[in-house]
Amino acid sequence: MPSFDRQVLRRKVSEIFVIRASGHSLDALREYPNWELTNHRLQQFLEEGVGGVILYGGSIEEITNRCAQLRMWAGKPIFLCADVEEGVGQRFQGGTWLIPPMALGRIYLKEPEYAISLAEHYGALIGYESVICGLNWVLAPVCDVNSNPLNPVINMRAWSDNPQTVADLACAFHRGLTSQGVLGCAKHFPGHGDTKVDSHLELPVLDNDLSRLAEIELPPFQALIQQGVSSIMSAHLILNRVDCNYPVTFSKRILTDLLRKKMCFEGMIVTDALVMRAISKTFSSGSAAVMAFEAGADLILMPQNPSEAIDAIVESLISGRLPISRLEDSLQRRQLALAQLNSEKPATSCEKNAFENQKVSFFAEKLIDISIESRNTLIIDNYKSLINLIRVDNLYSNPILNHSSPALVIPEQYGFRNVITHPSGISPWQNNVKEPLALEKFSDSAFLLQLFIRGNPFQGDEPLQEPWISVIMQLQRSKRLAGLILYGDSFLWNDLQNVLEPTVPFVFSPGQMPLAQEKALQCLLDSKKMKVDISPSQWEFIN
Amino acid sequence: MPSFDRQVLRRKVSEIFVIRASGHSLDALREYPNWELTNHRLQQFLEEGVGGVILYGGSIEEITNRCAQLRMWAGKPIFLCADVEEGVGQRFQGGTWLIPPMALGRIYLKEPEYAISLAEHYGALIGYESVICGLNWVLAPVCDVNSNPLNPVINMRAWSDNPQTVADLACAFHRGLTSQGVLGCAKHFPGHGDTKVDSHLELPVLDNDLSRLAEIELPPFQALIQQGVSSIMSAHLILNRVDCNYPVTFSKRILTDLLRKKMCFEGMIVTDALVMRAISKTFSSGSAAVMAFEAGADLILMPQNPSEAIDAIVESLISGRLPISRLEDSLQRRQLALAQLNSEKPATSCEKNAFENQKVSFFAEKLIDISIESRNTLIIDNYKSLINLIRVDNLYSNPILNHSSPALVIPEQYGFRNVITHPSGISPWQNNVKEPLALEKFSDSAFLLQLFIRGNPFQGDEPLQEPWISVIMQLQRSKRLAGLILYGDSFLWNDLQNVLEPTVPFVFSPGQMPLAQEKALQCLLDSKKMKVDISPSQWEFIN
Repeated sequence: MPSFDRQVLRRKVSEIFVIRASGHSLDALREYPNWELTNHRLQQFLEEGVGGVILYGGSIEEITNRCAQLRMWAGKPIFLCADVEEGVGQRFQGGTWLIPPMALGRIYLKEPEYAISLAEHYGALIGYESVICGLNWVLAPVCDVNSNPLNPVINMRAWSDNPQTVADLACAFHRGLTSQGVLGCAKHFPGHGDTKVDSHLELPVLDNDLSRLAEIELPPFQALIQQGVSSIMSAHLILNRVDCNYPVTFSKRILTDLLRKKMCFEGMIVTDALVMRAISKTFSSGSAAVMAFEAGADLILMPQNPSEAIDAIVESLISGRLPISRLEDSLQRRQLALAQLNSEKPATSCEKNAFENQKVSFFAEKLIDISIESRNTLIIDNYKSLINLIRVDNLYSNPILNHSSPALVIPEQYGFRNVITHPSGISPWQNNVKEPLALEKFSDSAFLLQLFIRGNPFQGDEPLQEPWISVIMQLQRSKRLAGLILYGDSFLWNDLQNVLEPTVPFVFSPGQMPLAQEKALQCLLDSKKMKVDISPSQWEFIN
Repeated sequence: MPSFDRQVLRRKVSEIFVIRASGHSLDALREYPNWELTNHRLQQFLEEGVGGVILYGGSIEEITNRCAQLRMWAGKPIFLCADVEEGVGQRFQGGTWLIPPMALGRIYLKEPEYAISLAEHYGALIGYESVICGLNWVLAPVCDVNSNPLNPVINMRAWSDNPQTVADLACAFHRGLTSQGVLGCAKHFPGHGDTKVDSHLELPVLDNDLSRLAEIELPPFQALIQQGVSSIMSAHLILNRVDCNYPVTFSKRILTDLLRKKMCFEGMIVTDALVMRAISKTFSSGSAAVMAFEAGADLILMPQNPSEAIDAIVESLISGRLPISRLEDSLQRRQLALAQLNSEKPATSCEKNAFENQKVSFFAEKLIDISIESRNTLIIDNYKSLINLIRVDNLYSNPILNHSSPALVIPEQYGFRNVITHPSGISPWQNNVKEPLALEKFSDSAFLLQLFIRGNPFQGDEPLQEPWISVIMQLQRSKRLAGLILYGDSFLWNDLQNVLEPTVPFVFSPGQMPLAQEKALQCLLDSKKMKVDISPSQWEFIN
């Protein structure tokens, strides 16, 4: 093959890659320099034809400028995507951060139609803010059915543990999202809800067979396909009884035979990030990219080494291991998806006032209000002294806890002493199963426990294993549990309720954001409980 | 007085105010919403004539846009200032963050001429980056002589505890700074180096009389005045023997009689921030502004309520409490200072590549190299297991410690277990003066201690009171001190050296930034010690 053709081929192959960049435009500001390319390399890849960028970090102002810059470097339409499952504010400071999908699943239990309407607006809000930033592809909805309550990585990101609920809410989300002119992505095919390990760290292995998949895992994906979702993301896990040789991302049997042929999906199949340890622990960037492409993936997301991955696919085509028609099919699907986008207009910074849309913030606030559950009021005067013990995953650049977070500031105003515990700090535990909290560290005050616990990528299952249920029993026995707020995990919440004495004031808030903290503490400390009154006319922010 | 005149007067009075804004342009991103005006109010104040803004927070990209926006709102030349004593990177992400001034004071002990040359480049670097951002007034150099080793707020921000050293280095800094076309500010008159309380929290009271001031505190200010410094900032403290009735900021005897008349200072006298608790605990915004202005201040910095403060000064002029000539004098000094500025050209975002100037980063890096002191190497194989115990002030949005900081990542790579302690976490202490560290929390590993301790505004003196000297003795007795790194306080360092056994590997780094962590750990863990080789030609980054 002459070198000219090789260059043309390399350019075409580059198009099916989505590489990772920081939302900050200066190299020195990258938060994950191991994963985020330098500007020099990024520009080079885009000029060489790379077809998409996935973005993390920065403010909405920065990301808006960044998207315009990346488009300029590419000089052609590209995908600009982000994992903004719970709102642009989940990844980019200044965007709106919404309660997790599972909170709507809980509302669905009582009022399915209402929950569906909320989910559609939830999707629309994310689409609306994504477009303002310049993003055109949102890597959501999560279509996993969280059937394993101890799932450390999906957890509250799922809409429910019930297939029909997930299908209804994910479809509603997707309708809202796409109404704003951005593409969605159903993930993680064929379902990541039954895992007990985090694929960011290890490769999960599941024993579910096809009939179980058909019953529990696949219905939401099938519903999204019927609704015309433009992309589906593969899960990094092994389904022993379906294809014991390959993780889904490399499995022709699952991506091509099941998804493409049996389920008739005609859109883009995209891999989950190839840097995730489930894959990168065992496979090089090159072999992972080739295997995924060979199995039927159309887009290759975030290999550790994009050059190596591009070259490896070029080689596999030149050597004849893969037919060139395979590439042409993927490129055509990519073109069709790009054509679906309303327009490629770059957002300008003037539009950032759109982030101060009052109907948007009203909707986000009301979602918090209706998702909070509470009982009893903490009467501060009943206690001589109070400790506000806060449990978080970590404190580094943590958007849920900083010096001005209500979870800290409000109890402080009432005279509580703040103590923060997190897995990398001094241990609060002692070697006693029934009395796990080392109380001698805490004088003889009573406790307000504020637990920020939910499954989250990269943490493993340790947070869900901490003995908080025993701590609650321990504190109740000694009459030192003045109140409890759980921010996050509704599965843990179900378990906590079984041990909580009826007189103990509690709040459960699926959302962890500052506004949820404020609302939760208001519920706990103020006898005038919140009155929630929300009608659709108040959040119809979409023109 | 007719209302038209009142409006004209109010506009003039507004000019002497410097109000506070976040570097982020969205209200929702303000880090200190209690102190940082909303955009609506900010724009209003600037349109009404307010003459300056002090900025905190945001990236250099954001601050650059922000400065242009503020200039546009003002429609006339204004002061745009920041507390970037240790580099633009100290306040704005992506700028360069330099080792603290005191580190140069230590070099001065051996090589005064070399230290002076470094200080001049230090100032030039800050001026260079400030201009790129659009700032025109840097609130530095600190001219305080840190005579009290337990000073919780000045500490490493001072150049030295010796008056001549402070004068030499502060003057060199100021020459470098002003060479770039920005103004400087000598602070905190007449010297904040002998305090043991933090004026951000309380009003310090000192017994030093005029002859002591003349000997220790005043020489650096006198030297800066001779060098033509355009502004001097007043300290919020009481000098009992000079003016027992008023804090310096309100003292005519000190600002007018001493500074203006006796020391012949003809530039602008600016107050320290009036929101600081030393003042705001006792005085309203209005009375504080009037008292400062009456005492001789030309510019009023950051009152909690700018409207009230402006109105109060307007009233004091209308009522005749203060002569109008007082205002005219201040406005004239302000005009002269603005005229000193090279140009009011707004920086454009294209110029942000200037932040990737290699000579700048080379200089910043070499300052770290030459400031680090070390002895012995930690031989990891000598230990069965190692704990990396890190002590920091806090973990919220802390630029010195996050998930990718070398202080965490490097020891982790070597198999250390990371444990972080900070004042708001679970206490590491037990009730035993000789054995203060509760060792039962830590299995039987040996320790690498990494202590980030230095005086810092808003913390009070608690960090400097923690019993780390006793911990070192405790660990040495049980042969469990594998190594020590102190990042920060050179006064504490002098004390630690007295108890450290000669075989214990240690590093002292005045800088706390990520690059200093990398260098310090390299020194501690690698037998091939760093070779420092720096010649002026390598950092001559100034055109």
